[in-house]
Amino acid sequence: MTDDAIYLDHNATTPIAREVAEAMWPHLTEVFGNPSSTTAQGQRARKAVEHAREQLAALLGAHPDEIVFTSGGTEANNLAIRGAAALARTEVAVTSAVEHPATTTPLAHLRRRRGWRVDQLPVDARARIALDRMPPGEVGLGTLVLAHNETGTVQPVRGFAEEIRSRGGLAHADAAQAVGKIPVSVDELGVDLLSVAGHKFCAPKGVGALYLRRGTSIAPVLLGAGQEGGIRPGTENVPGIVALGAAAELAGTLLDAERVRQTRLRERLWDRLAARLPGLLRISPAEEALPNTLLVVVPGRVGAEVLAGAPGVAAATGSACHAGTRTPSAALLATGLDADLALGALRLSLGRSTTRAQVDRAADALARSANARS
Amino acid sequence: MTDDAIYLDHNATTPIAREVAEAMWPHLTEVFGNPSSTTAQGQRARKAVEHAREQLAALLGAHPDEIVFTSGGTEANNLAIRGAAALARTEVAVTSAVEHPATTTPLAHLRRRRGWRVDQLPVDARARIALDRMPPGEVGLGTLVLAHNETGTVQPVRGFAEEIRSRGGLAHADAAQAVGKIPVSVDELGVDLLSVAGHKFCAPKGVGALYLRRGTSIAPVLLGAGQEGGIRPGTENVPGIVALGAAAELAGTLLDAERVRQTRLRERLWDRLAARLPGLLRISPAEEALPNTLLVVVPGRVGAEVLAGAPGVAAATGSACHAGTRTPSAALLATGLDADLALGALRLSLGRSTTRAQVDRAADALARSANARS
Repeated sequence: MTDDAIYLDHNATTPIAREVAEAMWPHLTEVFGNPSSTTAQGQRARKAVEHAREQLAALLGAHPDEIVFTSGGTEANNLAIRGAAALARTEVAVTSAVEHPATTTPLAHLRRRRGWRVDQLPVDARARIALDRMPPGEVGLGTLVLAHNETGTVQPVRGFAEEIRSRGGLAHADAAQAVGKIPVSVDELGVDLLSVAGHKFCAPKGVGALYLRRGTSIAPVLLGAGQEGGIRPGTENVPGIVALGAAAELAGTLLDAERVRQTRLRERLWDRLAARLPGLLRISPAEEALPNTLLVVVPGRVGAEVLAGAPGVAAATGSACHAGTRTPSAALLATGLDADLALGALRLSLGRSTTRAQVDRAADALARSANARS
Repeated sequence: MTDDAIYLDHNATTPIAREVAEAMWPHLTEVFGNPSSTTAQGQRARKAVEHAREQLAALLGAHPDEIVFTSGGTEANNLAIRGAAALARTEVAVTSAVEHPATTTPLAHLRRRRGWRVDQLPVDARARIALDRMPPGEVGLGTLVLAHNETGTVQPVRGFAEEIRSRGGLAHADAAQAVGKIPVSVDELGVDLLSVAGHKFCAPKGVGALYLRRGTSIAPVLLGAGQEGGIRPGTENVPGIVALGAAAELAGTLLDAERVRQTRLRERLWDRLAARLPGLLRISPAEEALPNTLLVVVPGRVGAEVLAGAPGVAAATGSACHAGTRTPSAALLATGLDADLALGALRLSLGRSTTRAQVDRAADALARSANARS
């Protein structure tokens, strides 16, 4: 694709919002102190970090002291899963069959190295978990993706968390794809832990956070000095944290309007693609789904080839983390989709800058490419 | 101290260089791709990351494929120490008595949770390790701070690394305070692993790196997808990495001139303080030391009170990570300094923007405050 392609890959990463970059800039220039220093510069940095903590807490309906800043969503998931596991009494984890590697890899570590049992809840054709397949007995930890990065499916985290907590476990939601796109309230979800990834909602890469409910104890994963309440050591990424706070505040402002707007654009995209591509499968649900995400399957085609034939559209065929390999998405296979069909997947993820004209042009280009046979 | 105080706290953190902030800016605005994405945006980001890898490798005399980007020095130390320990055959670590919490805390974890023996080499009055006190026998890992954050002492890492490697261990240097201030060559040092912290040499907070010698195997500490050669998962902090590369290149350009200039300023600062404060102790060595660091002890005074009496000077009394508490620095106690004397410590650390006039004014203000008695 070309550099000025229509960007429909917002689930891989988003452009930084102008307001966010501008909020960062003073912290890349005149404000530079170490928040742990007693100097005036240090205290200015400290104030900025604490303001950002309030901004993010407000978006999640949390208390500021429940926010632990991290280097991103992967670190937040590691801290939640391994930090909770270190103190758990029951070495059983419950998760879904459609988690991100930032969840599956820490869980595999618990299983192989720490002797945990890890139960995966199966999912239906829309990638939604079957809550009634919860295993019996005590649980140490439950971890579930709130919104799926490929299908956009929003999971029943509230019911999951209730189940997990009633069995004595801590409930974690990986909200990397959800925050900033749909309302995320830690109390409505009833979770103890929730991961946030800044670059998925117009903050820069390299910063994220873990929500850690008051009274919940976890062990740190990285070890060092006492920053972030002793839970996450290392000099704070002040510019990134400031940006995350600004992005959270901005997302709160835009959320309602963007949900409506992007849902309409997503449906328009689906309608235009479906009209021109008979047999096109829609995997993404229309309800209980991210407003911006449309995962479709072009039967008989390879998604990567369809994209190659539409260089004016920048999109994905699977999770960005696995891009470059042509093995079908594990999440799609978990939905029961045939492996050949799964290779025909196109993930089209919209964002704040996506316009109706872009959607129309992208649909045309993709349909033309999908219909072309060599 | 006031907000426009003379900043002599560069070992806590440095202002971001203007050139570095400007190199970042395009990556906070028009370039925003995920380096794992095959989109044109993604590939632009990937190229920027790889260019930064080359820039940092060049500063260290390393190959680009030996650089693993992290969220900072603490994570780099965790990755080096715990990543090496996970694969070590001999559960013995050798370190010094004057390490940063980012080293001592992972080592304490190995000792308490993994049954390692951790031997601390004692240090002399200048905080330099006694290499001849190396314990006999096989070693799994040696970790030593290259330049000390409080005293500026440069350790004999080359000899240490030779000893460690001859006993079958991996040799790690924590070069957080050294990189950008003195020449750091991974081959001259003979280390397998070396930690870099961006914000100590005019890159932003939230980014660092681990040098990992070709052929050296370590386990990842954070677990997730396959970024950074499978050693450090999570979407790359592209703006931070670009900044780290730019800061490395800039440091390489300025290093020789700044070493000479800052050494002169440091000695001028010492001369002026010593002339007005009879009995002032100098802990920092004059040779084999960081050019920018002067740790002095005002006998009979508390460093924090001396600084409070000189609000026009921003400096530290111990490591920034422990600031706010009035327990004497553990590193100073390890040098054999009496606890009461250690409370009289002032750490004055210069930087690129430090001028002769600032040094003179700071010396006046500090001497006046140290001489004042209430």
